[in-house]
Amino acid sequence: MRKLLVIGIGAGNPDHMTVQAVDGLNRADVLFIPDKGAKKNDLAELRRQICDRFVTNPESRRVEFDVPVRAEPAPSYRSTVDDWHEAIAEIYEGLVRDELAEDGCGAFLIWGDPSLYDSALRILERVRLRGNVGFELEVIPGITAVQALAASHKMALNRIGDPVLITTGRRLTEQGMPQNAGSAVVMLDGKCAFNTLVDKDLIIHWGAYLGTPDEIVVSGRLGDVGAEIERVREEARKRKGWIMDTYLLRKAGEDD
Amino acid sequence: MRKLLVIGIGAGNPDHMTVQAVDGLNRADVLFIPDKGAKKNDLAELRRQICDRFVTNPESRRVEFDVPVRAEPAPSYRSTVDDWHEAIAEIYEGLVRDELAEDGCGAFLIWGDPSLYDSALRILERVRLRGNVGFELEVIPGITAVQALAASHKMALNRIGDPVLITTGRRLTEQGMPQNAGSAVVMLDGKCAFNTLVDKDLIIHWGAYLGTPDEIVVSGRLGDVGAEIERVREEARKRKGWIMDTYLLRKAGEDD
Repeated sequence: MRKLLVIGIGAGNPDHMTVQAVDGLNRADVLFIPDKGAKKNDLAELRRQICDRFVTNPESRRVEFDVPVRAEPAPSYRSTVDDWHEAIAEIYEGLVRDELAEDGCGAFLIWGDPSLYDSALRILERVRLRGNVGFELEVIPGITAVQALAASHKMALNRIGDPVLITTGRRLTEQGMPQNAGSAVVMLDGKCAFNTLVDKDLIIHWGAYLGTPDEIVVSGRLGDVGAEIERVREEARKRKGWIMDTYLLRKAGEDD
Repeated sequence: MRKLLVIGIGAGNPDHMTVQAVDGLNRADVLFIPDKGAKKNDLAELRRQICDRFVTNPESRRVEFDVPVRAEPAPSYRSTVDDWHEAIAEIYEGLVRDELAEDGCGAFLIWGDPSLYDSALRILERVRLRGNVGFELEVIPGITAVQALAASHKMALNRIGDPVLITTGRRLTEQGMPQNAGSAVVMLDGKCAFNTLVDKDLIIHWGAYLGTPDEIVVSGRLGDVGAEIERVREEARKRKGWIMDTYLLRKAGEDD
C-alpha cells in the first residue's frame, strides 16, 4: 500500500517546523512540490529552503508539478471550488500513480496546518473516491499564520472563557462581526474586508508575512488604523508581488 | 532587561516541538515548571521528558513551583478567574524577581499554544502592570490539541469557505451550535456538553490524549456515539486519573 503524508510546514518561518514534520519529510521517498518552475516565487523558494535544510534522506526525490489556477468564483463559490478541486485531484492521482512505487511513501508540504483553510485533505479524499489508486493517509499538524499572528502580537486569540470565530474575508463582509464571539480571526481576505465593518471601535491586530524577516504588524482601533493597514498592505503586495496576511478583530469595551 | 519566553510545547506528543521551541528552551537560563513535586502526574512527567530530550544547554536550571487551584466558578466566572490570575501573577512576579538575573532569560512551557485558552500571557501582562519587575516578552507558538484532533481524524476543521467557531463546553451549553458556522471546535469541556445539544444528527469527531500513545478517537452521528463517548471518557479518566479531550461538531447534510 502506498503511504501519503500531508505535512504542515508552518507559516513561513522554517523554525516553525516540528520534529514530527522533519521526520515526515525524511520518511518520504518523494516530496511533491507545487508551482513547477516558479523560481522567482518567494514561497516556492522558501519551501525549497525548508527541504534543503531539513531533508537528510539521500533517497528522497522532489517532484514539482503545476497547480491549475482557480476560476473567479461566480456565480457559486462552491461549484467553482468543486471544478478546481476535481482538476487538482486528477493531478494528484497521476502523481501518486506515476511517481510512487506500490509500497512508496509520498509527502505533500502544506503551508500552515492541513486542517485550516487548506484543500489537500479534501482533494486526496476525492482521489480516494475516484478509486484508481489506493493509499494510506497520515496527517502531521503545523503552525498556522493565526498562531504566528497571536505570537507576534503577544496575545491570546480568545478573551477569557469566550469563543473565537475563525472566518474568511468573504464571510466577514456578509455576516459582520459575530454575535456569539468577542473575537474573530479572518483569513483569505484579499479585499480588506475589515474596512467594510460599521463598528470602527473594534480593535484590529493585523499581520503579513508572519514569522518571516519581512513580517509587518499593525494594531489599533479599526477607525484609526484601518486605512493605514490597507495602504501598507497594498504597498507591500506591490513591492513583493504577493502578500499573505491575517488578522484578529476584537470587540472594544469588553475587557478581559 | 530580563527576557521571558512563553513557549508552546505541543499537545502531548514530544514530536510536536518546533525548531523554534527547542531553540527557546535552550536560550533560557531558567525553565519554570508548574506542579511542584507532582511526580505521579503524567503531564508533569511528560513535560520533564520534553526538557530531558530537548534541553542541551548545560547552564539551564529548572525551577518548579506550585500553582494555586482555581475556586469553583460562582457566581461570576470572570471574577473567579480574576482572583485566581492575580494569585498566579504574584507567584510569577516572585519567580522572575528571585530566580532570574537582571539580564537573565526565563521560559514558561505551555501545553498547546499560548494563544488558545491559556492564561500565561494574560497573567504576565498583570505582572507587568503591577510594575515591580520589568521584562521583555517573546511568544513561541505550538501545536494545539485542536490541530492534533484534526490530524488524527484526517480532516479539515472548516467546510469549504465556511467559518469555524472555537468555543468552550460552557458556552456550547449556553449557546448551542453556532448559526454563523458549520463547524464548532469545543475545548475545556469537562461535562460532555455535546450531550446537551438537541440536534442528534450533528457529526462529532472526538479525541482524548491526542498525539500520545494513549490517544482515543471516536467519530459518528451524535445520536449514535454521544453516550459512548461519555462512557469511554469516564472510563479513561478514572483509569488514568485525568483526561484532556477536545472535539469538532459539524452540521449534517451540508456537505463539502
